[in-house]
Amino acid sequence: MQESLTLKEAYKLTPYLLNGHGPRDVQVLMDALSSYPGNMESDIYGTGELIEHFQTEMATMLGKESAVFFPSGTMAQQIALRLWCDEKGWRRVAYHPLAHPEIHEEDCLRELHQIETVLLGEPDRLIRLEDIKQMKADISCVLLELPQREIGGQLPTYEELEAISKYCRELGIKLHMDGARLFEVLPHYKKTAAEVCQLFDSVYISFYKGIGGVAGAILAGDLSFTEKTKVWKRRLGGDLISLYPYILSAEYYIKQRLPKMDEYYEQSRELAALYNACSGLTTVPYVPVSNMFHVHAAIPAEKLEPELIALYEQTGIGLTSYLTGNNGNSTCSFEVNIGDRYTKISKESVKKAFDLLHQRLVALT
Amino acid sequence: MQESLTLKEAYKLTPYLLNGHGPRDVQVLMDALSSYPGNMESDIYGTGELIEHFQTEMATMLGKESAVFFPSGTMAQQIALRLWCDEKGWRRVAYHPLAHPEIHEEDCLRELHQIETVLLGEPDRLIRLEDIKQMKADISCVLLELPQREIGGQLPTYEELEAISKYCRELGIKLHMDGARLFEVLPHYKKTAAEVCQLFDSVYISFYKGIGGVAGAILAGDLSFTEKTKVWKRRLGGDLISLYPYILSAEYYIKQRLPKMDEYYEQSRELAALYNACSGLTTVPYVPVSNMFHVHAAIPAEKLEPELIALYEQTGIGLTSYLTGNNGNSTCSFEVNIGDRYTKISKESVKKAFDLLHQRLVALT
Repeated sequence: MQESLTLKEAYKLTPYLLNGHGPRDVQVLMDALSSYPGNMESDIYGTGELIEHFQTEMATMLGKESAVFFPSGTMAQQIALRLWCDEKGWRRVAYHPLAHPEIHEEDCLRELHQIETVLLGEPDRLIRLEDIKQMKADISCVLLELPQREIGGQLPTYEELEAISKYCRELGIKLHMDGARLFEVLPHYKKTAAEVCQLFDSVYISFYKGIGGVAGAILAGDLSFTEKTKVWKRRLGGDLISLYPYILSAEYYIKQRLPKMDEYYEQSRELAALYNACSGLTTVPYVPVSNMFHVHAAIPAEKLEPELIALYEQTGIGLTSYLTGNNGNSTCSFEVNIGDRYTKISKESVKKAFDLLHQRLVALT
Repeated sequence: MQESLTLKEAYKLTPYLLNGHGPRDVQVLMDALSSYPGNMESDIYGTGELIEHFQTEMATMLGKESAVFFPSGTMAQQIALRLWCDEKGWRRVAYHPLAHPEIHEEDCLRELHQIETVLLGEPDRLIRLEDIKQMKADISCVLLELPQREIGGQLPTYEELEAISKYCRELGIKLHMDGARLFEVLPHYKKTAAEVCQLFDSVYISFYKGIGGVAGAILAGDLSFTEKTKVWKRRLGGDLISLYPYILSAEYYIKQRLPKMDEYYEQSRELAALYNACSGLTTVPYVPVSNMFHVHAAIPAEKLEPELIALYEQTGIGLTSYLTGNNGNSTCSFEVNIGDRYTKISKESVKKAFDLLHQRLVALT
C-alpha cells in the first residue's frame, strides 16, 4: 500500500471492516431473490399478494392498523407531514435542526408542499419536552427521529418519549416517527416495535439501514391515514408498477437481521469502549444506545488520516472510510454502525488493533 | 373450465396468450440479474459506474447531451414540466385530454406544482398543429405522447411532428416527449430514436412497456436541464440509494428487445388484420403504427365475454383479460400489445382461432 492512498482507497483495500453488513453490491439482491420462486407474481401498482402480504406483516409488527410500502423515506415522510398539515389546517411542522427533511431533501417540504418548518432545540442535543412546550407557533405535527442519527444516534429516555407523546396528544399535535433505525434501538428500550409505535400517530421505517436491504420504506398508521398516503404516493411518482425488488429484499433481510439487533447493540457498546480507551477519541453517545455511534477525535483530519491508513495496512482492520472536519477543521469525526461484518474478526485482533491505534495517537501528542 | 369463470380468470388459465412478453413475475428480474456479476457495486444515490454508464448509453441513444434515470415516468415527467414552467415563468402546460398526467397521476401537476393544464384537441383524436396554433393561453411547454396510448397508439405523421416542433421553437414553447413507447414507433417512422428526439427539448422513455423491464424511466435533454432534474428527483423521494434492480433489468431487456421492435410492429399489423376480419370488430388504428392497437367491438361486453371465454377454452388461445364498456355500455373495447409471446403460437393456430371467433360473432347477430 502506498502512502499516497486516500483514506477511502485504503479502507476499500482493507480485508476486515468493522462497519456494516458487507458491500452494497448486486449479490445483496441476488441472495434475497434466491429464496423466492421465479413464478411469484409481481406487485402491480401497489396491489397484489406480494405487497399486500408484506404491508400487513409490517402493520402487525408496528402495532398499527395499516402500512404502505414506499420506494423511499424521503417520499414517505413528506407525505405523512403533508397529510397531518392538511388535516390540521396549518402548514407548519416542527423537528430537530438536523432532521433528514431539513438537511438531506433539497427543501422538499417548502418547495413541494409549502410547509414551514420550526426547528426544535439545538443541533448538538436531543429535542426535549421543554422545547416542544416552548414553541410559539401553531404546528400540525412534531417529527421525532429515533435514534437521532446526525448526533451519533442519541435517544431520549422512554419516559421522556412517553411524556412528549402525552403532551402532543393533549394539544392535538400529531406525532410522527422517523424510525429509519427503529429496530436498532429496541434492545436499548427493551420494548417491542409496537410498544414504541403506539406513542406515535404515524411511523416510517427504513429497510436499508440496520436491516441491510436494497432500498424502500414503510409508512404505518390508521387505515384512514394510509389510504390517503396512497394518493400522494401516486402523485409523487412512487406508485411503481413493481416494487418487489425492494419488498422481497426487505422481507428477506428482516428475517435474517431482526433477531440480531441485540447482538449489534452489545457489539456497538463493546466497540465504543475500545474507541474511548484511545487517546483523544471519544464516542457520542459515550455508551451507545443502538448499533451506531459517532467517533470524535481531538485532532485534525489531516493528522488522523495517515495514522488510520498505516493502521489498516498493519492490521488488515479498517475503521472508517472518511473523516469529517469539525470546529474549523481543528477536530474531526466519523460514524460507526455495527452489522454482520463485526463478528468476522476475532475480538483479540480488534483489541490489538485498538491498542496499536492508542499507541499511535499517544505518540502524536 | 366452468361457465362461471370471469374473463380475467379464463385468460389466466389459457396456455397461449397473444399479448405481451410473458408473466410479470420475479423471474423477469432473476433473468436480468443472472447476466451480471454479484460483486458489481450498487449505484449510490444517483452516482457510481452502474447508473452513470447506463445514463450515458441512453443519452447517446436518444441523441441528447445527458440523461437521468428515474424510478417512474410519473416522477420524471412532472419534473420536466415543472422545470420548463420555472424557466418560462408561466405555470401552464398543454397536452392531450387523455395524456398520462391528466388521467393517471392524481392531479399531481396542480397539487404539487400549481401547474395549470390546457387540453389540446379532442379526446378521440391526435393533437394537430392547428390545435397548438389556436391556443389562447401563454404556455411554457407542450407534451406530446408518441404514440398516443389511450386512443390505440395513434401517431402523427413525421411531417406533422416536424411542423409542430418548428412552430414551438419559433414561439419559444418547450416541447416535451412522453416517449413511454418511443422505441415501439421507430419502425413506422423509419427513424432512429435520436432523429425523433432532436425535435424535442426533453424526452421521457419507459422500460417496462415494449422493453419489458421491471420498472424505471429515463429523462433526457441538455445537461443544464438534467442537472436540475436531479434536485427535484431528490425532493420527490426518487433519489434512492439503489436503483440498480431497475437499471440492470432495463439494460438487459433493451439489448434483447430493441432488435425485435421491427418484428413486433409487423406482427401487430398482421394481428390487427385478423381482428378486422371478424364480424363487428375494428381496430384503432385500423393499420397499427406500433406494437399496440385497440380493438373495438360493436356489441356490449356482456355479449362478447362468454364468446371469448368459450374461444379460449376451445383453442387454448387468449386474446384479452378484460373488456371496457363504451358508449353507455352498448359497445366495448380492449388493448392489444405485441411482445415475445406472439411467436410462441403457430400462425395457423392463430388464424384458426380468429376464424372461429368470426363464426361465433356472426352467429350472435
